[in-house]
Amino acid sequence: MNILFIMYDQLRYDYLSCAGHPHLHTPNFDRIAAKGVRFTNAYVQSPICGASRMSFYTGRYASSHGAQWNGYPLRVGEMTLGDHLRDLGMDCWLLGKTHMKADAKGMARLGLSPDSLIGARQADCGFDAWVRDDGLWGTGPDGDYDQKRSPYNEYLKSKGYDGDNPWADYANAGVSNDQIASGWMFMNADKPANIREQDSETPWLTSEAIRFIDVAKMPWCAHVSFIKPHWPYIVPAPYHDMYGPEHILPPVRSLQELKNPHPVLKAYHDTKVAQAFQRDDVRAKVIPAYMGLIKQCDDQLGRLLDHLEATGQMDDTMIVLTSDHGDYLGDHWLGEKDFFHEASVKIPLIICDPRSSADATRGTTCAALVEAIDLAATFVDAAGGEVPDHIIEGRSLMPWINGEGPEDWREFIISEYDYSVTPRADALGVTPRDARMMMVFDGRWKMIHFEGGFRQMLFDLETDPHEINDLGEDTEHFDQIARLYGYLGQWGRRMSQRVTMSDTDIRAARGRSLRRGILPFLVDGSEVAPELTKKYTGSARQKH
Amino acid sequence: MNILFIMYDQLRYDYLSCAGHPHLHTPNFDRIAAKGVRFTNAYVQSPICGASRMSFYTGRYASSHGAQWNGYPLRVGEMTLGDHLRDLGMDCWLLGKTHMKADAKGMARLGLSPDSLIGARQADCGFDAWVRDDGLWGTGPDGDYDQKRSPYNEYLKSKGYDGDNPWADYANAGVSNDQIASGWMFMNADKPANIREQDSETPWLTSEAIRFIDVAKMPWCAHVSFIKPHWPYIVPAPYHDMYGPEHILPPVRSLQELKNPHPVLKAYHDTKVAQAFQRDDVRAKVIPAYMGLIKQCDDQLGRLLDHLEATGQMDDTMIVLTSDHGDYLGDHWLGEKDFFHEASVKIPLIICDPRSSADATRGTTCAALVEAIDLAATFVDAAGGEVPDHIIEGRSLMPWINGEGPEDWREFIISEYDYSVTPRADALGVTPRDARMMMVFDGRWKMIHFEGGFRQMLFDLETDPHEINDLGEDTEHFDQIARLYGYLGQWGRRMSQRVTMSDTDIRAARGRSLRRGILPFLVDGSEVAPELTKKYTGSARQKH
Repeated sequence: MNILFIMYDQLRYDYLSCAGHPHLHTPNFDRIAAKGVRFTNAYVQSPICGASRMSFYTGRYASSHGAQWNGYPLRVGEMTLGDHLRDLGMDCWLLGKTHMKADAKGMARLGLSPDSLIGARQADCGFDAWVRDDGLWGTGPDGDYDQKRSPYNEYLKSKGYDGDNPWADYANAGVSNDQIASGWMFMNADKPANIREQDSETPWLTSEAIRFIDVAKMPWCAHVSFIKPHWPYIVPAPYHDMYGPEHILPPVRSLQELKNPHPVLKAYHDTKVAQAFQRDDVRAKVIPAYMGLIKQCDDQLGRLLDHLEATGQMDDTMIVLTSDHGDYLGDHWLGEKDFFHEASVKIPLIICDPRSSADATRGTTCAALVEAIDLAATFVDAAGGEVPDHIIEGRSLMPWINGEGPEDWREFIISEYDYSVTPRADALGVTPRDARMMMVFDGRWKMIHFEGGFRQMLFDLETDPHEINDLGEDTEHFDQIARLYGYLGQWGRRMSQRVTMSDTDIRAARGRSLRRGILPFLVDGSEVAPELTKKYTGSARQKH
Repeated sequence: MNILFIMYDQLRYDYLSCAGHPHLHTPNFDRIAAKGVRFTNAYVQSPICGASRMSFYTGRYASSHGAQWNGYPLRVGEMTLGDHLRDLGMDCWLLGKTHMKADAKGMARLGLSPDSLIGARQADCGFDAWVRDDGLWGTGPDGDYDQKRSPYNEYLKSKGYDGDNPWADYANAGVSNDQIASGWMFMNADKPANIREQDSETPWLTSEAIRFIDVAKMPWCAHVSFIKPHWPYIVPAPYHDMYGPEHILPPVRSLQELKNPHPVLKAYHDTKVAQAFQRDDVRAKVIPAYMGLIKQCDDQLGRLLDHLEATGQMDDTMIVLTSDHGDYLGDHWLGEKDFFHEASVKIPLIICDPRSSADATRGTTCAALVEAIDLAATFVDAAGGEVPDHIIEGRSLMPWINGEGPEDWREFIISEYDYSVTPRADALGVTPRDARMMMVFDGRWKMIHFEGGFRQMLFDLETDPHEINDLGEDTEHFDQIARLYGYLGQWGRRMSQRVTMSDTDIRAARGRSLRRGILPFLVDGSEVAPELTKKYTGSARQKH
């Protein structure tokens, strides 16, 4: 069996018709949901691209792998999905974005060249790169944002788009008065991107995926990782005007949230992006573009699925659809992600296992508390391996997919956010070390703990599903807070770094030294079998 | 300046005359204490050789580096003292024991050969090995305990000691009725080891250290790491009969400790070694040998110090004397280490900095709460470096040594113990994952937390300095317990794996992407300096 692990970037959990969006029809997502299991309580380990992805790829919490924000290198030697799957005879390929930054210092210390096979995998998060494109190609006064080459920009140039950076000038820009109308600016979000639709990013990567599928040696795991619907929010025709004001859902927000807000939340209210999304005109421009980008993703997903069907590979391929985090779009007076409301931290997750073992659950939903790190475990399990649970902290979802839900499933979700590199750390006067927050969510109660001396926040999603009432200072709920801190403490004490010894290794090591001549704590030797001591009592020796 | 980092194995904090032992005179330890600072509240990160040492060498807590018991490999790429000091131009040498096990799987995955310089350092815990000898050379029905060569056994053979393993047959055995009387058996502890005193382990390693000092290129850090006074408890003449019954301190224990003991403590009471040390005849045999071994260590320390003085290097060398953990010797009805009473978890620590900056503190003691991980930070600081505090979790002791105690010193000590590989895990019915315990000690209150559902233990060292009364179930002290759990939670949330980004790196990264053409969240572009956007508005383009 193959694994087609498709990730969209910044796709909200609720912007799919199978998840209940009233205006955005995504028949191809729905098609997989109808054949698989849709997990309705799936959360990322960090609501930010880089950290979230490193958790997906390692199966480990952000504070376990340490790459806690975009551009924070993943330490050399940290094991990834690719390491685990290759040990099981399954190749592990990358098509698209990882947001991985190599640990260049660590690699140099260990003498690993990025040009070697081992070095390249270390630098590409354990994947073999079919085509790697991280999808953000900026150039400014200080030079290029991303030093790597952009296969997508090369493609555009080959198609006749001019300039150094057609990604910025065509794929992510419209035209206004014969000038580039940059997609960086929300006011341009309603324009069609100045690019033939088939040359835009999502169709391009879909074509790469089809090319890959046609030649790849089975069994493979392919991480097809789209940059969209991530910003810049601009989409080519006809998607740019498929949605209008009547399709924009009202923002989930209340004036109450602006009264005495938590200082860290307040700092996020004050960001440029939040202030933009607090404006109706911005939402009116951006949300239809965002929906158009998703609609394009869905159409291209259909193209890919049709190809799998046409080539007879649908029955051999597990299909996984997910996202690295959501998008506030103005909910809670916020834009982007970076905080722990559902719009940001919850993700779509649909898994279709073609094997008959999964027949019982086709078309169902599963409300178990699922974490992004569960996918690495799931893939290892699906590929026939034993999950190395001393390394991968997630748990396999296969029991859910097979309709045999385990009895002892986790009781809480942890998600983390490290804002040390952001201006919020300065604005709040916290050190890089303290610029961290953690969510504990048990399915009803969601607590956010902040380092740096701030109070906690608390929401009761049963009575307040929109997360409007912050109960963090409410003495009535101190028992819940204490209980959730208990979970956080338990998680903090987890065994995350004993990665060189499995439980099996440990059990096998018990008592071994005794039979290798290490015999401590004998009073007179009669305590152990004679064979263990005879060497030391059997012969006369020269006296020194 | 050089750093002479001397470690004794299993040396109790209180078996030195400078620390108050009434019968054991250790003038050479005292000589360094008189010239330096003796830290009277120094604790190991784990009361077991391997885990403790990996914490000394990495400057990181046991659950941060993951090598949580003897023989649990230190993961490849984990940075050590050697990495940090070499970056500062100081070589870092090993003479003696580390108890490091290489992460062979991890090294193979990264293509590192143990024969290469990089591979050898990975396998030797970051040190360059002048002479590595882990000091336990057993052979039994299943073969050799340690697969490496033993330079000490080779030395013994060169001196005419016969057999495959003269370490076991001579250095750690006496003679009785012309037969080997193995030092593994406590009943033989009063016999003189069947070896010329100058050929025994401590003088041998001291000679190696002298050889090293005479040729080493300055500046160096040398970890001279003695196996003694670690068991087997047997010592050559004249040390074997220097101490008698009149020098044995009564055990620190009470019958009260045997009433309703904590289940994990009970499991330790039931071990072979504990039961042996509960016997007066065993203590009568072993403790004089243990004291003799320490006395020999002291004499050899004198020899080394004299050599430094004679060669004029005393003024260029920081001298550090410490141990990897203590030895119960029957206290609390226990033997060995493995638990958190002071006899086990507290260590001697004496540091003499020859520089005039340390003159103000010569001959003083310091009662600050010190952890073993502080040494790595201290050495980096002493060598003129900035402590990489995103990697090294300990803190430099130099402010204390220079008499400028910092205002915000730590409020609590953490020590951990992983008993997953021991028969106690089976006896208690806990999984390898839950076979862990953690101590939190704030200088007065010592709490021990146990994974696996056991209750905590609590001691008040102010009213109960001998740690007899376990208050863990005492409702009167639940506020203290909650406070200490607060510390444990704080520690559990520490940032231990963000090792690829220093605070300086993070501060430097702020805002960088904006000047590299990543311009998200602009409404119309007027929000930023024109130079950041002009590329996108300046020229007409072909319309696609």
